Order: sequence, then C-alpha cells, then structure tokens
Amino acid sequence: MAVQPVVRESAIDEIRELLGDRLSTAPAVREQHGKDESWHPAHAPDAVAFPASTEEVAEIVRICARHRTPIIPFGTGTSLEGHLMAIQGGVSLDMSRMNRILRVNVEDLDVTVEPGVTRKQLNEYLRDTGLFFPIDPGADASLGGMTATRASGTNAVRYGTMRENVLSLTVVTPDGQIVRTARRARKSSAGYDLTRLFVGSEGTLGVITEITLRLYGIPEAIASAVCSFATLKGAVDTVITTIQSGIPIARIELLDEAMMDATNKFAGLSYPVQPTLFLEFHGTEAGVKEQSEMVQALAGENGGGDFRWTTKEEERSKLWQARHDAAYAVKALRPNASVWATDVCVPISRLAECILETRKDIDESGLMIPIVGHVGDGNFHLVVLIDPDDPVERDKIEKLNDRLVYRALAMEGTCTGEHGVGLGKMKFLEAEHGPGLALMRTLKKAIDPLNLMNPGKIVSI
Amino acid sequence: MAVQPVVRESAIDEIRELLGDRLSTAPAVREQHGKDESWHPAHAPDAVAFPASTEEVAEIVRICARHRTPIIPFGTGTSLEGHLMAIQGGVSLDMSRMNRILRVNVEDLDVTVEPGVTRKQLNEYLRDTGLFFPIDPGADASLGGMTATRASGTNAVRYGTMRENVLSLTVVTPDGQIVRTARRARKSSAGYDLTRLFVGSEGTLGVITEITLRLYGIPEAIASAVCSFATLKGAVDTVITTIQSGIPIARIELLDEAMMDATNKFAGLSYPVQPTLFLEFHGTEAGVKEQSEMVQALAGENGGGDFRWTTKEEERSKLWQARHDAAYAVKALRPNASVWATDVCVPISRLAECILETRKDIDESGLMIPIVGHVGDGNFHLVVLIDPDDPVERDKIEKLNDRLVYRALAMEGTCTGEHGVGLGKMKFLEAEHGPGLALMRTLKKAIDPLNLMNPGKIVSI
Repeated sequence: MAVQPVVRESAIDEIRELLGDRLSTAPAVREQHGKDESWHPAHAPDAVAFPASTEEVAEIVRICARHRTPIIPFGTGTSLEGHLMAIQGGVSLDMSRMNRILRVNVEDLDVTVEPGVTRKQLNEYLRDTGLFFPIDPGADASLGGMTATRASGTNAVRYGTMRENVLSLTVVTPDGQIVRTARRARKSSAGYDLTRLFVGSEGTLGVITEITLRLYGIPEAIASAVCSFATLKGAVDTVITTIQSGIPIARIELLDEAMMDATNKFAGLSYPVQPTLFLEFHGTEAGVKEQSEMVQALAGENGGGDFRWTTKEEERSKLWQARHDAAYAVKALRPNASVWATDVCVPISRLAECILETRKDIDESGLMIPIVGHVGDGNFHLVVLIDPDDPVERDKIEKLNDRLVYRALAMEGTCTGEHGVGLGKMKFLEAEHGPGLALMRTLKKAIDPLNLMNPGKIVSI
Repeated sequence: MAVQPVVRESAIDEIRELLGDRLSTAPAVREQHGKDESWHPAHAPDAVAFPASTEEVAEIVRICARHRTPIIPFGTGTSLEGHLMAIQGGVSLDMSRMNRILRVNVEDLDVTVEPGVTRKQLNEYLRDTGLFFPIDPGADASLGGMTATRASGTNAVRYGTMRENVLSLTVVTPDGQIVRTARRARKSSAGYDLTRLFVGSEGTLGVITEITLRLYGIPEAIASAVCSFATLKGAVDTVITTIQSGIPIARIELLDEAMMDATNKFAGLSYPVQPTLFLEFHGTEAGVKEQSEMVQALAGENGGGDFRWTTKEEERSKLWQARHDAAYAVKALRPNASVWATDVCVPISRLAECILETRKDIDESGLMIPIVGHVGDGNFHLVVLIDPDDPVERDKIEKLNDRLVYRALAMEGTCTGEHGVGLGKMKFLEAEHGPGLALMRTLKKAIDPLNLMNPGKIVSI
C-alpha cells in the first residue's frame, strides 16, 4: 500500500480540529508510540491521538476512513511482537485517557472498564469489594491491549485467559459504527460470537472502547510456595501429573536454573539456583491444605524438595512480582540488549519433551537463554537477549526461534500461547493454520475492506 | 431466493453418484429430516445425504455450490427453534454415519469425535478412562449439533458451555475447503478465533466434521441432593447467594411447582410439589462435604428444607434423567400438543425479578406453564404446550414469549441462553444486538456469499 502523505495531512488536521491538543505530531511522542518492548525495529506513526470517549474514537475512525489513513490502537506499549509498529504510517490511537472503571457489578461478578485501565489499576480499585481480576501478563498492561492479544499469565491454568474472561466488548468497527458484541448474561446462543471475534484481533478489525470482564471472589485462603528440583525434567513432570490429576491449582510456574539466577539477582532473592516451580493454591483453608499436600507428594516423587511457603500477602506479592519481572530480570543482565521473548504452547503430554529438546538446543547454540513459563497450560517462553544490530547473533537467534516454533507445531502446539502474532509470528501462520489462514484473510477483508485497522499485522491482504 | 428445481436435480444426481444409496429422496426420510422437537412447521429437504467422511462432505458442498443448492446439517433432530427446517429446500446432511470417536488423549484431557457422536455415546465410551464430558442438554443430542447451537445444560455453571469446551474443529467451509480451526494446545494467540466463529453458527457458515473437546476427570466424590422450598423466591435467592459466594457447585437446577408435578408423574417420583432445587457437588470427599454444608446453610436461610441426598450412581442417574426429561414430562401431560421451549438468560442479579415477574405473567395468562432452568447461569425455560393449529392459543403464547424476551433484554439478558436462534429467535436479534446484527450479516456474506449454508437462519441476507 502506497503512503498518501497529502491525504493523511487532511486526516490529521480534521482530528486536530476534533481533539485540539490531544492530537500530537511531536517527534518524541511519535517515537514513543512507534516502539514496544520487543526487538522489532521502531516505526513511528504520523500522529498520535488521545481520544477520551467511544464517540471520539468513532469520529476519528470515520475521518481516517475518508482519508485512507491507518489507525493503530495503543495501550501501554508493552507488546512483544511489534503489534503497535506503524509500518504503513498513520495515526496511533493512545487509549490512556480512556482509563475509567465504568461499573462494578459486585452481585454479578463483573466489571466494565475503558481500554486504558491497566490490570493493576483494576485490582487496586476492586480491593474493597472482595473481588479480583486474575489475568496477569508480566507487564502492567492495559486491559484493551490484553483483550486485543488474547493475553493470559500465571493464573490462566485455573481462571482461563482473556478468551474466557471477556464477557462483552464495545467496539468501533472500521466503518465507524459502535457495536456492543454481547449482553451481560453469562452465556448466550444468540448468533455469531462477536466477542471472541475481537478478542485476539490485535486492533486489525476495530478499536475496543469498553470491556466487560468476569471477576472472582478473593479466595478465603491463598498460599504460595516455591519448590526446587534436582532436574528440569522432574519439575516439568510434576506439573504434568498435577494437571492430569485435576488438582485445581491456581498457579504453577516453571523457572529454569538460568532464570532463577537472573531472578535472584534482579529481585534480591536467594532461592537455590535450580529448576524451580512457583506455586499457588486458592480455596477454603481445608481445600488449600488438601491441594498442597497432593502436589507436595507429586513433587516429592519427581525429585522436588520441601515447599518454601509464603502466606503473608506482602511476601506473596514480592514472589509474584519477581515472576512477572522475568523479562526485565534477564534484560538487566545486559542492559543495552533488546528482548526477544518467544512464546509457544503445546498439549501438556508433549511439554516435557518440548522443553527438554529446547533446553538441549539452547545449550548447543552456546547462547545464555533462560526458560520460564506458564507450564500448567503447556505454555513457555525463552527470554532471549539480542543486539538487533548484530546480524550474526540475530541470525542465530532467529534460527533457534524457528526450530522452537516448528517443534511446537509438530507437537500439535501453537506458535504463540499468549503474546500474539504482531509482526513476529506472521511467517508461521501458514504452517499453523493451512487453509484457515485464507479464512482469516476473508474475515479481515470483509470487516476492514480498506485495510486501515493496524494494517500488515496478523494477515496481510 | 428463488427455488431452482432443475439445477437441484443435477446436484442430487451428482451426490447420488458419490454416495450411492446413502442419498435418499424417499418421502418418509425427507419428512423425518424436516422437523425437530419444536412447534415450528415442518419443511422437508429435497434429499437427505448420509456422508461418511470429511472428504465426502467437502465433495457434497462443492457439488451443491456448483448447483446453487442449500445444505442443512442434521444431527439428531432435537433442535428447539426450527434450526433444521429446509425452508428453501436443498439437501439435508445427516451426520449420523459420522459417529466415530477418533482419538482420546487421556493425558491431555481431550477427545476428538465426529459430529454424529451423541453426548451419551461419548460418556459411555469414556467410562473406563476415568474421564467425562460434562455438557448435557436435555436430549441425547449429537456433539455436532451441540457445537452448532453453543449448547450447555446442567453442568455449565461449573464446567462452562460448548463455547468453553470446544478446543478445535474441522469444518468444511462453503467453498469446499477443509479447515482445522485451531491446534490442540489449551490456549493460543495465533490469529482470529476461528473455533468460536463456528461454535454457535448453526450450520450457517460451514459443516462441522470433527470436534476436539475438553474432558474432565470424574471427581473423587459426587453427591446430589434435592431441596424443596416454601417459595419460588426462596429457591431462586438460594441460587443467587450460592453463585455470589463463589461456591464451585457443579449443578443447581430450579423446578417450579408445576414442573415438579409433571416430573413426579413422568418419572414415577414422589418429591413434594413445591419449588425445588436439584443440586450436585463435585470434588474430594472433604470438598463435597464442605460445599454442601455451605449451600445447606444458605438454603435454610431462604426457607429451604433438608437436603434429600442421593449418592449411589444409579439413583443419581435417575434424578438427572428426570431433570433432562423435563420437556418430555410436560409433553406427556397433553400428548398431541407440540412443545414451545422458551429460553432466556439474564445476569444473576436480575434472576429473581425476572423469574417472579414471568411467573406472575404466566399466572395471569391462565396457561399451565412450568418453569425450569439452569439458574446458576441465570438461564431458565418455560415449557409451553401448544396446538400450532389453534391461532388463538398460538397468539397468546407468542405474546407471552415476546414479553419474556423483552423483559430479559431489558435486564441486560439475552433472547437465548442455549437453544440458539434458528427461526424462532431471529426477530429478536435486532433488539438484542443493534448494529452487531449488521456485523453478523457481514460475516455471513463474506464466508457464504452464495447463501447456501442453512439459509434463512440466524441472519437473512
């Protein structure tokens, strides 16, 4: 698609008329909105708009459609696969001013928020209600961005991902219509699942302007534990048998030796530098005791040591913050490097094989790469440091990443469990979906015929 | 759309060449495939095909596309809103020969089946594995039909609906392509959610030919109970507080006085004719005890009597069969009548209000209509007997149904919680979805531009 600078200037002028100083073309602002937390090269948008309402978003979308100007929704800029790069220029829609919590329905266990609300902001707000929202990617991401990438995190093994926890959305479609995707009822068979159409669509089908999410009661009892293992295999096998036994564990996270070393250093902790599980149990007092005894027994059978318990809220927060900071902890080892956080997910029966083959592949490559993951879902990451300007290193890492993805695909897995496609995973979608990719292209063309919504991401048309 | 009989004869001839005697135009076969369990007038297809493989389905779809002939997938014929009526003629695709269980992955807690497998057949087959599939509409429906209508049932309050429990599908799209919608990994962010696009699409976007479903370990302990209440309000309030307390109850079903009377008669039971909850608890021995004590206490506060326990498997089966037979039990009261099973779902905070207003409306109408429902989800039904040839009765019932649906919509609910749209709920979709309905139409047109897949259902284009 050829860039049309003159037309775009008209679009920018019209948006400025609408938003006043909430439209910026300042180089620093544009630059900030053209990069994420990944190694992907930056692409700044032509302008950055800061809308304050659904109606403003709809008006901006209509202006951009008239002037054939791309729109890229922007949450907190923490994407990991280049989702927000303005590779065809256009207007970045920064949703940070739309950060109101609109309505908490304590009785229905749901909440409606604007997309700029972050996950921590929401849980802070909910504190006095006895409810919480469980989905927690590493970054304090916006709920709009989390919806758009179908994010998950450490609690997904028990509470599901954004796929299961978004009840309904308000979306501005590429023709400027405002669509509410579903009612607030817990279930419905009233037609096509518009909600799930937009969850994971990465801004390519429309702009999300309101999100209704499921909430959960804060459990009566919560206990977190850390368990070190003699071998990586022992740790992974413990996860697999825990899941297969149907124990309703809330969190079960793997950190390999390299990851534990980086985490100890970054968070000022002193856990043994061994393959380790971070675990958490939710339930009644009796239920938590029962679950944790079952998992402790399974860990013991697989070479795991005693659980180190953290039950005080402050300590637990510190433990999970350390887990959430995994990517930052690795980055701190080499501050000038960029992060390439890989992300595959396989059926749990193939998890040990997939992780062990990958560990062997890393060791043979001579690279220092920690493994960390939401292993209860079969999902894990390599946190790779890369100097994007070093073509030899980049080539080596790219080949390692390719092997990882094709290994996961050969095991009936997916090229991304939670980070999304963005730019980085597009090349694997043909291998993953086959004719399904053409169907995705059909959807994109039908809903966004002018190809203006985050163009060049997920599918190119 | 004008009927094109000559072209259709060519389609039928070509399908006969492919399938031999697995293509029937016998009047009795056509008639059987033109009616469901609802009151909607029958519409027989021009022919009935019995494919045996995905490849045969793809070939049939390609033949029908060439000859502009509609295709209506057919499971067990137990739909409740006229989904399978061949209102524009065409070929009914009876999936009953595709009834193989293709692969059970015990370690991954999943199974892949052909669409003609019924829910009872699957659970019978799984018996020795220690696993089960929880979704259970009243009828012993096919899993293909259950996927197509986004079915749920008594276990949805704990285990979710078909939306949450379909991992992946194989689908033949209207252009004759065979698409696998997702990998077998538990989660993925690799592009648009093709699986959820087809769950609930009622045969209007393609033909489902394989289904991969989540399975669950049979709990260590299962206990069912029956609890009678002094008032309907007391029963509903018990449900609401149970859900709001986050108790992981497996089943919590409401039967009002009229429903209990019909159920006692049909199933040879002798429960008190009072508003009643059927309950079930799943978990460890200790967990089940703990949960049931909590719910018993809540019931006591709302005028509920003591729980009557059934823990033996045979007794439990009898109890739940009685619940599943609700529609048949009501029908037995007036054997020549047809059943009009309504189906709304509201946020749980509005459930008491919605049910009590509806009960009042029924009482004022002078009709004898039982209420029954999956009240833990906010979902309930009226089981209405109707003589479709009596215009006065039909008009009275239609108005009652309209009032029920608009009442649910006004409470942020949906016009169908689990039965689907079919023909019966199309007129409410504009009120429910607003501009979302146009988006559904866009999807339908893009995927099925010739409008051959179960045409005239969900959205008309």
